Amino acid sequence: MTVRPISVKLVVQVLRGVAQVDFMPSAVCGLFFVAALFAAGWQYGLYGLLGSAVATAAGYGLRLRRDAVETGLTGYNGCLVALGCAVFLGPGHLATVVVAVLGAVVSVVVTAGLGALLEGRGLPALTAPFCLVATAVTVAAPGFRRLWPADAGPAALPVAASGGTGLGWDQFWRGFFANVGQVFFLPQWYVGLLFLAGLFAASRLAGLMACVGSATALLTARVFGAPAEAVEQGLLGYCGVLVALALCGVFVAPDGWSAAYAVLGAAAATVLTPALGAVTAPFGGHAFTWPFVLTTLLFLAAVPAIPRLRRI
Amino acid sequence: MTVRPISVKLVVQVLRGVAQVDFMPSAVCGLFFVAALFAAGWQYGLYGLLGSAVATAAGYGLRLRRDAVETGLTGYNGCLVALGCAVFLGPGHLATVVVAVLGAVVSVVVTAGLGALLEGRGLPALTAPFCLVATAVTVAAPGFRRLWPADAGPAALPVAASGGTGLGWDQFWRGFFANVGQVFFLPQWYVGLLFLAGLFAASRLAGLMACVGSATALLTARVFGAPAEAVEQGLLGYCGVLVALALCGVFVAPDGWSAAYAVLGAAAATVLTPALGAVTAPFGGHAFTWPFVLTTLLFLAAVPAIPRLRRI
Amino acid sequence: MTVRPISVKLVVQVLRGVAQVDFMPSAVCGLFFVAALFAAGWQYGLYGLLGSAVATAAGYGLRLRRDAVETGLTGYNGCLVALGCAVFLGPGHLATVVVAVLGAVVSVVVTAGLGALLEGRGLPALTAPFCLVATAVTVAAPGFRRLWPADAGPAALPVAASGGTGLGWDQFWRGFFANVGQVFFLPQWYVGLLFLAGLFAASRLAGLMACVGSATALLTARVFGAPAEAVEQGLLGYCGVLVALALCGVFVAPDGWSAAYAVLGAAAATVLTPALGAVTAPFGGHAFTWPFVLTTLLFLAAVPAIPRLRRI
Repeated sequence: MTVRPISVKLVVQVLRGVAQVDFMPSAVCGLFFVAALFAAGWQYGLYGLLGSAVATAAGYGLRLRRDAVETGLTGYNGCLVALGCAVFLGPGHLATVVVAVLGAVVSVVVTAGLGALLEGRGLPALTAPFCLVATAVTVAAPGFRRLWPADAGPAALPVAASGGTGLGWDQFWRGFFANVGQVFFLPQWYVGLLFLAGLFAASRLAGLMACVGSATALLTARVFGAPAEAVEQGLLGYCGVLVALALCGVFVAPDGWSAAYAVLGAAAATVLTPALGAVTAPFGGHAFTWPFVLTTLLFLAAVPAIPRLRRI
Repeated sequence: MTVRPISVKLVVQVLRGVAQVDFMPSAVCGLFFVAALFAAGWQYGLYGLLGSAVATAAGYGLRLRRDAVETGLTGYNGCLVALGCAVFLGPGHLATVVVAVLGAVVSVVVTAGLGALLEGRGLPALTAPFCLVATAVTVAAPGFRRLWPADAGPAALPVAASGGTGLGWDQFWRGFFANVGQVFFLPQWYVGLLFLAGLFAASRLAGLMACVGSATALLTARVFGAPAEAVEQGLLGYCGVLVALALCGVFVAPDGWSAAYAVLGAAAATVLTPALGAVTAPFGGHAFTWPFVLTTLLFLAAVPAIPRLRRI
Repeated sequence: MTVRPISVKLVVQVLRGVAQVDFMPSAVCGLFFVAALFAAGWQYGLYGLLGSAVATAAGYGLRLRRDAVETGLTGYNGCLVALGCAVFLGPGHLATVVVAVLGAVVSVVVTAGLGALLEGRGLPALTAPFCLVATAVTVAAPGFRRLWPADAGPAALPVAASGGTGLGWDQFWRGFFANVGQVFFLPQWYVGLLFLAGLFAASRLAGLMACVGSATALLTARVFGAPAEAVEQGLLGYCGVLVALALCGVFVAPDGWSAAYAVLGAAAATVLTPALGAVTAPFGGHAFTWPFVLTTLLFLAAVPAIPRLRRI
């Protein structure tokens, strides 16, 4: 009966790996997140757990620092990589499982490498390892016949937005929740609601800042005239959610100044999101959470120069 | 009557912000530059001043280091960001003003962030903050219906150059001055002449090196056969001007060796300019001063390894 | 008769410059490599020697550190830059010679600059200077009428792979050697065999790891279904060869763990190679050895965090 505590401990670490996508070292939050993934599709739930588990196991295999592995910091990039493979390559192919496992293992090495490069600057790797691996896999996929679904479209040049920009009340509140769910590539409003519930379960401030980030993104998208359909699916706001979390409470001490800083950052990330969509479109890539990574790294690097803000 | 010295001081700092685009901490030089902007169009003058003023104010609001704000180092990226918004999105829309102000504020944060990252290496941020923000805004613009003028063309693949490559005397001297003006996106030779006059007003060496950089770029473009029309508009040489300034007099002690180094760097930047035009074309971007930033950062990073050169 | 030892010393350094493309500070290895270049075409041999010689001379001219110049570390990027100009712009034009010489000189500055930036991290510049300069030149070339051969195709969007993926025995062994030769852009199997012989002549471990990297790349390409024709020409595997060399023996102490690490890295680089082909396709670029550089830098940066591995 000594096996059980160990396996419970491992389950807790895998769940924390899922929750760390939103910076929460909390297994309860991870449970909500996994429930949200299964609500969107059982394959997504399985791939998310698989990625976190493989990456956590790789962390043990490579004997990485224990505290990072145990708080889920080794698992979250693997979780996103595997989930991204399922969403963008189709969950039902054997080659997708193989590349998801390989990608999750590589994401652990990339996390350690980027972590070492950024540590000297006092900066976190955020989801940059996921962005790197997922960009590599999805852009490479058309070059491999077993990875690329036959009905997937080819790469294309970006085109100017069309369609209405007026946001009705229905589109507004759906977009508000979808912004939270699109962090995991999922557009359904009720999935986003489950993720938000998980955030509130882990930390009231985190839940609140996710709401602030989502609202800032909606407002920015509205002011500059983003197409309402994309806003409703959360495609403009998922990076704003993550930026707001990171810049007020997670990496910067929460107060009025950092809240304002988080709003500025969320607005910047909302403009940056279609920019990275356009940059990656010609080679068949996706924006992923690159806008969040770039905005947050630069805003965090500036914190020591701004006496009004304090790093945690 | 105590208000007046303060407002004069602020005007001086805003003018220095404009002059620092060409590394000059000189309000007189800034006056020439603002005159050049107004000569090209009153809206350009206003946007340039707006950007420098907003960024300088943001520097005070965030309580950044006083000496940086006062010498114009906080304002020059904001000046370029706002001017770039006017040139590429059209000056006459309310959304352009909003995004120019937002971009100028974000450029201050990015300048502080990049500055902190590069400071440890002894490297300056140059116009990288402007390049980042302007690339983000112009590439994102087609995704926002209020930002994108209806008659703007879509993104396109780069095509091979066509047209004659022989440079007549008229094209040569117009290109010579246009190279200086294109640092601010302006192709008119007389505008470039005003910028050059401002440089000479601030520093004879700076004016001379701008001429050396412009001539090197013209020669390089001629040798490899760049289209004469683009050369005449200064599209091949504006980065060469900035590189030559940076590598002989501004960041490297001026002597024969650093002059030769500046010529090599200006030639390299001239080849890099159409390369970055091609890289950014498929997603609707522009080369901006990326070729100058990349060339100068690498050439400056190499200086400590080259005993013949000495950093200032 | 005192001139002769000096000129022999210089020849040795130029040959080491060629050999350092594969990390070997060995003139004998360089002789094999030069023979391989001449076997593919006498112009390739001349351009390779020219690039190494110009870069080595520039290293002396700039008074760079003696040990780096003498072991060939100043020359290998210049060798690749000049060879790349010959392969991608056509060897028979005067402008190609001029840009090859200019590029080789610039590669020395870029090597010094990147070296200084990465040194603090304990990371080598690898072939990043070559990748930067060669990408700049080949992407800029269509913008210069004297650099761009009239019959060269325009830039195009990447398309999904087609053609069979089954590897016959003939394609397998040809691909196995071609992977080694494509490091120098050469697809002939016998040229790759000569390069491999040079590696074994310099170090038995290096020859062995080149074989391991090549085999790993073939296996990865086969599992995910890369087109057999590209595999046969070594287009999927040249980065795997370099990654395996770097991660077991050159920069990481050779043992079972680093061999496994090298296999993981070679597999990752094999997936990354068509990704970078797609990323660079829309602007007319090439993957060059970017996949090797990116994979190796991140895997090397992670080494200090992995107690099972030890940097050399």
